[in-house]
Amino acid sequence: MASQTTLYYAAGTCAQAVLIALYEADAQFTLKTLSFADNEQRSPEYLSINPKGRVPALATEHGVLTETPALLLYVAQTHPQARLAPLHDPFALAQMQEFNAYLASTAHIAHAHRPRASRWADDEAAQASMRAKVPQNMRECFAVIEQHYLGDKTWVMGEQFTVADGYLYTVAGWLKGDGVDIAEFPRVAAHFERVKARASVQRLK
Amino acid sequence: MASQTTLYYAAGTCAQAVLIALYEADAQFTLKTLSFADNEQRSPEYLSINPKGRVPALATEHGVLTETPALLLYVAQTHPQARLAPLHDPFALAQMQEFNAYLASTAHIAHAHRPRASRWADDEAAQASMRAKVPQNMRECFAVIEQHYLGDKTWVMGEQFTVADGYLYTVAGWLKGDGVDIAEFPRVAAHFERVKARASVQRLK
Repeated sequence: MASQTTLYYAAGTCAQAVLIALYEADAQFTLKTLSFADNEQRSPEYLSINPKGRVPALATEHGVLTETPALLLYVAQTHPQARLAPLHDPFALAQMQEFNAYLASTAHIAHAHRPRASRWADDEAAQASMRAKVPQNMRECFAVIEQHYLGDKTWVMGEQFTVADGYLYTVAGWLKGDGVDIAEFPRVAAHFERVKARASVQRLK
Repeated sequence: MASQTTLYYAAGTCAQAVLIALYEADAQFTLKTLSFADNEQRSPEYLSINPKGRVPALATEHGVLTETPALLLYVAQTHPQARLAPLHDPFALAQMQEFNAYLASTAHIAHAHRPRASRWADDEAAQASMRAKVPQNMRECFAVIEQHYLGDKTWVMGEQFTVADGYLYTVAGWLKGDGVDIAEFPRVAAHFERVKARASVQRLK
C-alpha cells in the first residue's frame, strides 16, 4: 500500500478493525484521527472525503473507500504476504465475508441503538426504549458468535489469524458499555484476550 | 456451482439479489422458497440449516453460507465467466463490496425498521416512532446512492453489470412500501427499469 494511503479513524469505533488490519499487514499509511466530540466527521473538509460522514474511510492512490468489511478485504488483498484472508479459496473467503457482514449488519447495528438511537426515531421515549433492548440484542448476537461462528477455534477462520479477528475484537470491546459482561461468552472472552496480546493491538495503546 | 447447491429464498426479501445473481451466472441450483407467513424460517428444519433463521442461505457442497454481500461475491467468484464482479482489480472489487455493504448495513437496516421494528424495541409506541422515520431514512440512503454511488453510470460499477445491480434493484423495490416514490431519484428509477428488463429478472415473475 502506497504511503499516500490515509486511514480516517476515531477511537472506539469500527475503524479500529481496519487499523488493526493495517498494523498486521505492516502497511505504509498515515493515520488521521477525527474528534467525534468536536463533530469533525461532519466538517465540510471530511464530508468532501466521505460524504456519509462516518469512519472508517481509506484514502488511496485510486480513490476513497469506505465500509469496514470492504476495507478489511481490501487490506488483505493488497497485502497478500500478511495472509489476512483466505484469498485463494472462494468458499473460505465467503465464510470470512459472511462473518464480517454479520458483525456489520447485525452486531454493530444492535450496538448502535444505544449511542445512535436517534438515527431511527426522533422522540426520546422511543430512543430510551431502543437503548433498553440493546443488552438483549447484543447477547443474542454474541450467542450466535460464540456457538455458531467461533466454537472451539483459535481464530474466527481456524488456525489462521485474519482481518475478521480484529473486527470481532473491536465489536466485542463494545459489550461492556452495552451492559453485557463478556464473561457470559467464554470463547469470545478468550478470543478477545488472544487478539489483545498481539503486537498490532498493543500498538493501539 | 454444483447441482447440489440450494438457495433458501423468500419473495420480497434481500434473497432476491442472490437469486438474480444465480440466474445471471446461469448457475445450476435448486430453489427452496420459505413461507414467512407460516414462519418457516423459524422451523427446526430450517434452523438446522441457518441458525440465524433468516434468508438467504446457500447450501453448497462445502457447507452453508449466509449474508447477502458474502453470497453475492461467492456467486461471482465461482462463476467468473459471467463477469459479475471486478475479480482481478482489488480497488474496484472493494468499491463493489463497499456499495453492497452500504446496502446491507445502512439501506436494508433503514428499511427494516418498518417491518421489523420489534427487533429493536418491545413497546408498540417506540415501534410506531421507528416506522414513522423510515421514509426519511430511506430518502437519505437513496440520496447517497443517487448522487454518490450511481451518478450517471449505466450500472453501479460503470459499463459492466455486476451483482451490485441486482442488489440495488432489490432494495429499491422496497421504496414504495416504505412510502417513498422512486421517481424522487431519477437515476435510481432509470437503473431500476434497466435491471427489470434483464432476462434474469424476468425469470423472477
